[in-house]
Amino acid sequence: MTTPAQPTPREKDRFTVTYRLSGGRDEAEAKARDLIVEQTVEFPPDLIQEKHILDHVVGRIENLEQGPDGAYRARVSFAADDVGGDFTQFLNVLFGNVSLKPGVKIDRLGDLGRLGDKFRGPRFGCEGLRERLSAPGRALLATAVKPMGLSAEDLAERAHHFALGGIDIIKDDHGLSDQPYAPFEERVKRCAEAVAEANKKTGYRCLYAPNVTAGPGETERRARFAKGNGAGALLVSPGLCGFDAMRALADDDTLGLPILAHPAFLGGFTASPESGISHGCLFGQLMRLSGADASIYPHAGGRFSFPEAECRSIALGCAETMGRLKPIFPAPGGGMTLKRGDELKRFYGADAVYLVGGDLLRGGPDIVKTCETFRRMVSNPPLHPPF
Amino acid sequence: MTTPAQPTPREKDRFTVTYRLSGGRDEAEAKARDLIVEQTVEFPPDLIQEKHILDHVVGRIENLEQGPDGAYRARVSFAADDVGGDFTQFLNVLFGNVSLKPGVKIDRLGDLGRLGDKFRGPRFGCEGLRERLSAPGRALLATAVKPMGLSAEDLAERAHHFALGGIDIIKDDHGLSDQPYAPFEERVKRCAEAVAEANKKTGYRCLYAPNVTAGPGETERRARFAKGNGAGALLVSPGLCGFDAMRALADDDTLGLPILAHPAFLGGFTASPESGISHGCLFGQLMRLSGADASIYPHAGGRFSFPEAECRSIALGCAETMGRLKPIFPAPGGGMTLKRGDELKRFYGADAVYLVGGDLLRGGPDIVKTCETFRRMVSNPPLHPPF
Repeated sequence: MTTPAQPTPREKDRFTVTYRLSGGRDEAEAKARDLIVEQTVEFPPDLIQEKHILDHVVGRIENLEQGPDGAYRARVSFAADDVGGDFTQFLNVLFGNVSLKPGVKIDRLGDLGRLGDKFRGPRFGCEGLRERLSAPGRALLATAVKPMGLSAEDLAERAHHFALGGIDIIKDDHGLSDQPYAPFEERVKRCAEAVAEANKKTGYRCLYAPNVTAGPGETERRARFAKGNGAGALLVSPGLCGFDAMRALADDDTLGLPILAHPAFLGGFTASPESGISHGCLFGQLMRLSGADASIYPHAGGRFSFPEAECRSIALGCAETMGRLKPIFPAPGGGMTLKRGDELKRFYGADAVYLVGGDLLRGGPDIVKTCETFRRMVSNPPLHPPF
Repeated sequence: MTTPAQPTPREKDRFTVTYRLSGGRDEAEAKARDLIVEQTVEFPPDLIQEKHILDHVVGRIENLEQGPDGAYRARVSFAADDVGGDFTQFLNVLFGNVSLKPGVKIDRLGDLGRLGDKFRGPRFGCEGLRERLSAPGRALLATAVKPMGLSAEDLAERAHHFALGGIDIIKDDHGLSDQPYAPFEERVKRCAEAVAEANKKTGYRCLYAPNVTAGPGETERRARFAKGNGAGALLVSPGLCGFDAMRALADDDTLGLPILAHPAFLGGFTASPESGISHGCLFGQLMRLSGADASIYPHAGGRFSFPEAECRSIALGCAETMGRLKPIFPAPGGGMTLKRGDELKRFYGADAVYLVGGDLLRGGPDIVKTCETFRRMVSNPPLHPPF
C-alpha cells in the first residue's frame, strides 16, 4: 500500500436513511451491521487497515429501535462523500446491494445534509404549479389523453374537450411514446395547440403534459421539443428512464417545466412488506427528491391495490419537511370516479392533483359538461380537513 | 371523432411475454384480461369504438395454463407497434402498470418478433468476450478493485496485482463512481495503466472494467473517457441509470466495449414470489436484451439469498435461444470463495464468469499467488458437465 487517502472535514457531512429490518433485535442488529458495510465498502472490515475508511466511509448505525409494527428500524448515516456528485450513486448507497438481501426495506429518507443542496428536487412544487395554473388554494384536476391507437388528431380533439371543460393538467397516457399511431412530435404539436385554443376560449391556464420518457439524450430532446411547441408540463416515468433522467430535467435551468412523475415499472419495489422501498419513501420522498412536482400513483380502492395507509404515507412524503425541498402534490389516480369525489377530498383535501381517466367519458357524449362537473366537485372546499 | 388511424400490416408483428398470475383459473383469467388492457390502451374497452384498437393495439392472450408450481401462466402477445422504437416503452408494455397490481409477475420473455432486430442486445456475448480475452473453452475469472475510500493509486496497485495473478476481468466495485477518494478520471487512467503494465509482463489480456454508471449524458461521456484511456470493458448498473442507458452503450458502434451488468437496486423486483420479475427474466433475459455481455448476480449460499433454482434460471436466461441475441455469461458472485470452486464448476461449468471479491485477499499477503490459485481452479475442466 502507498499513502492512504486522508479523511477530510467533508467526510463528516452525512445523510441519514431509516431501514425496516425483519426479525428480532439480534437479527435486526446483524442486518444493520451488514448493511453499513454492504452499501459502502462492500469489503470484509477485518481486512481494512485504513482507519479513515472504517471511521468515515463505512456507514454508521445511529439508532436501532422497534417500530410501531414490531419490526426494528435502523437509522443509518452515510458520508456525503460516499455519494460524490452522482444521483445514481446516491441511489446505490441507499439500496444498491441490500435490495438483493432479504428482510431489508427502506422506510424513509432522513436528513440529507449537504446533498440537499446538490440535489434540489422539484423546481416548482405545489406553490409554483398553482401559480402556473392560477389556482391558489384549491385541488387540481388532471386527466390523460388516450387510448393508444388513436391518431394524434383524435387525441388532440379529446385534449381540446378536456381543456374546455376546465381540466387543469392534461397529460399523455404514459404509454404514448413515439408509436406510429400518433408519433411524438405530431402529437405534441396538435395537443398543445388544441389546449392553447381552448384556453383562449375559457381564460383558463390548462397545461398539456406530453410523455417524454425515452432513452438517454432522447428524453431531454423530447422535453425541449415539447417546450418549444407549447407544452406546459412534462410527464416522466423514472422507473423506465431512470430517476436521474427526471432529476436532470427538473434541474435544467434552460427547460423549466413542471414535472408529473408516473409510477410505471416501480410496483416491484412496494410489493413486499419486508423488502423493497416503502410507498411513502418511493412515491413520496424519492419522487420529490428526483424532481417531480406531482407524483402519480393509484389511490386505494381503484383498479390497483395500494392500501389507504400507504396512500396517506405517500401524501406525507410529498409534504413533510425535507431540508429545502419544496412540497409537491400527491396525484392519486388509477380508476378514480365522480362518485368517489367526496371521499377523496376528505382524504387528501386541497393539496392534491386528482387524476381522473375513463370516468370522464362515462358521463355521456358531452365530455365538456362532464369535465365541468368534475371541476366543480374538485374546486369546492373539502367536507372535512384532511389528516 | 375524425378519421381513425387504420390498422397497418406492421400491427400484425407481435412479441410475446409470459406472466405468472396468482389465484385459480378464473382469477388468473381475469388478471390476464385486465393485463392486456392495462399494458396497452389503459382504457375501458367498452368505451373503445375503433375496431383496429380492439383487434391490434390491445394485447392478446395466446395461452393460459397451469405451470409446474400450480400457478397459472398467461402467454400474452403485444403489437410491436405498441412499443414503437423506444426501449423504455418496451419495458412499459412489459410491466409498466401491472407492476403495481398484486399477483402479476413476469415469468419470461418469448418471441421478440421484429423487436429483436431493433433491440440487438449484447455486442460481444460469450464468444466475443472469449475472443477479446483469448480464452476459448474455459470459465473466466473476475474480481473488483475496492474498498471505496482507497486512493486511485492504491486501487490501481490492487488492480496490478490481480492482473499479474491472471484474473481475466478486473472491474471497479460498483460503488466507485466519482467520489473525492478516487475521482473517476484519475482512477480509470491509473487502473487501466496498471492492468496494461501487468499484461505486458504476463502476456495475458486482462480487461479493466470501470464503473461508468451515472446520469443521462454522463454515463456515455464516462464510457468514452474509459475507452480513450485504456479500459477494456465497462461496468453498468441499469437499475441505477436505466436499462436503456446500458442498451445504448452496447448498441453504439463507435464505442464497442464489452459490458458487465451489475444488479444494484434491482433486488426489489425479485423479492416476492407473486410480484415483480422472475430471476431468470430479469438477470438473464432482460440484462441480455439490454446489452450485457455478462450478468452479475449473487450465487446461492453467499452473502445474499438467491436460491439455487433461481441461479439456474438466470444461467438459462443468459443462454437460451432468443431470436438472434447472442448468449451471454452468467457472472455469479456475492461472497464466492476458493472452497466453493468445485461446487460452482459443477453448477455452471465453463460458460460462466466467476466473480471473486474479498476472498482473494484472504490468502495472505501474496495476492498474486492467491489469484493464480483461483485461476487454476477456474481454468481446469469442470468435474461434471453442468445442467
